[in-house]
Amino acid sequence: MTRKIIIDTDPGIDDAMAIFFAFQAQELDVLGLTTVFGNVPVTLATENALRLAEIAGVDVPVAEGVAVPSVIAPRPHPDFVHGTDGFGNINWPSPKGKAIEQSAAEFIVEQVRQFPGEVTIVALAPLGNLAKALELDPEIANLVDEVVLMGGAAHEFGNVSPVAEANIINDPHAADKVFTAPWQVTMIGLDVTHQVVLGNAILGRIKEEKPDQGGFLYDCAQHYIKFYSDRFPIEGCYFHDASTIAYLMDPSIFTVERGPIRVACEGIALGQTIFAPEGLSYPEPHWDGVPSTQVCMEVDEERLLKLYEETMVS
Amino acid sequence: MTRKIIIDTDPGIDDAMAIFFAFQAQELDVLGLTTVFGNVPVTLATENALRLAEIAGVDVPVAEGVAVPSVIAPRPHPDFVHGTDGFGNINWPSPKGKAIEQSAAEFIVEQVRQFPGEVTIVALAPLGNLAKALELDPEIANLVDEVVLMGGAAHEFGNVSPVAEANIINDPHAADKVFTAPWQVTMIGLDVTHQVVLGNAILGRIKEEKPDQGGFLYDCAQHYIKFYSDRFPIEGCYFHDASTIAYLMDPSIFTVERGPIRVACEGIALGQTIFAPEGLSYPEPHWDGVPSTQVCMEVDEERLLKLYEETMVS
Repeated sequence: MTRKIIIDTDPGIDDAMAIFFAFQAQELDVLGLTTVFGNVPVTLATENALRLAEIAGVDVPVAEGVAVPSVIAPRPHPDFVHGTDGFGNINWPSPKGKAIEQSAAEFIVEQVRQFPGEVTIVALAPLGNLAKALELDPEIANLVDEVVLMGGAAHEFGNVSPVAEANIINDPHAADKVFTAPWQVTMIGLDVTHQVVLGNAILGRIKEEKPDQGGFLYDCAQHYIKFYSDRFPIEGCYFHDASTIAYLMDPSIFTVERGPIRVACEGIALGQTIFAPEGLSYPEPHWDGVPSTQVCMEVDEERLLKLYEETMVS
Repeated sequence: MTRKIIIDTDPGIDDAMAIFFAFQAQELDVLGLTTVFGNVPVTLATENALRLAEIAGVDVPVAEGVAVPSVIAPRPHPDFVHGTDGFGNINWPSPKGKAIEQSAAEFIVEQVRQFPGEVTIVALAPLGNLAKALELDPEIANLVDEVVLMGGAAHEFGNVSPVAEANIINDPHAADKVFTAPWQVTMIGLDVTHQVVLGNAILGRIKEEKPDQGGFLYDCAQHYIKFYSDRFPIEGCYFHDASTIAYLMDPSIFTVERGPIRVACEGIALGQTIFAPEGLSYPEPHWDGVPSTQVCMEVDEERLLKLYEETMVS
């Protein structure tokens, strides 16, 4: 049986890695892509999602979502990471297709209502669309199978501040809504994504076997790999968004701890995912009664990269 | 040569452990005790500081300091940890002595001016007196040898919230002033104090050798040990305040990392000591230009406890 997923995304180079991975995975049925501001403005995110579907030859609806954060002022898009086109400045031609008329939040609500208990939302971006869907129809929290998101950091240092990861700090108020809603959230944050480095050896082999998707990924990734290799002592890039897809295919690659998460929405801690592990209690009450998130803490790098390569060339 | 120290304190059971330790240490010359609200109200902190000096038979000035936080509303005193008398409800008789006329901040400024470059401030409590001294005379930042403080947490979970330690959350604005002033701060936080457990075996041996101080500590500590043993899987109490004195006597017991610290002053992260390790940089600028704190990360429990016992019975 396949697992139905909606991918909420701001493509983005690692979004491309994740989306192709999901398209290739036999176990997953991608119901649609929903887009949001983040790595790029939302209109470009929508075009890029359409580009990815077309490159992969997959017919899937794309629904455009929110363009700005729920409360705070927008931050600059990180073109130094993803390029101004979101794909490492390779200037890929415009897509032929168009987004559907529904908004991202409307599409999410419709699909969840259509397949109650069956839909997993895979979130690779700031969480405005998920927050908006909860606002439109709070009941969906009980009807979603799971929310698996790339974002945040429980113990690892952040990448925008010492405590904040980019997806979360881009819309902290939306993220706090997502972490405190009564659905099962699994957080794949920097704790695990900084444990895995994807380099040109694997990307080169995927390109050889699958010239369309693999060639596109290889070309995009050079800008991304340069950013990471210049900044960190690694030869390659950290394996962020695509880790969510690996988790859906084989959760045993990860270890998980459980406990409520709240997101700091002000001051210098803005965007921090503050994790209160189950079993500890505190005088400060902000975590009381908040559902437990599953927080991925360790990952088997070798198995993860093997799963990625094997799936991508299958 | 001895090292001149002023101990800023809110006694407090582990304050008593630290102050007797400092009195016993040949390497240290305690210029005075300054008191502040925290474990108990400031007037009781002052009485308790006088009690400790009298029990130890040490003639040392005690200067009373601030009674409330700089900006936020006061939090309740933690009588479930230290007892309503600050000493585990043993109801020790009133002290004979009195505090000096100077305030804690005035005493600090005077001593630092009198011994430029020679005075280390050992802070075991909320940091209002240090902030006030900086306000009275900002120049002292360049005249103090070092500030060694018990408080905060860089990686370890907090004890008042998942990210906040008690001394810091009790006066976060004062703490942020102390961490950002241009003096050398060494932070001994929960990262190391949660690695060391002091139990009744050692306290019993100290009591046998030194009935006055040791007997007092043993009796105080029973309430404190019960609190910790009920809450954590340990037989004894964590070694908080006295770790600062051990650091002064033998810093090689600890490992240290360096980097600026800012304190979260609002929202759910209130009181967090956010550490930005040297060598990493972030788009968020709040840590830029802030002097590096020395943050103790690891401690040799066996050597620390041996140093404590040997010094206390010497």
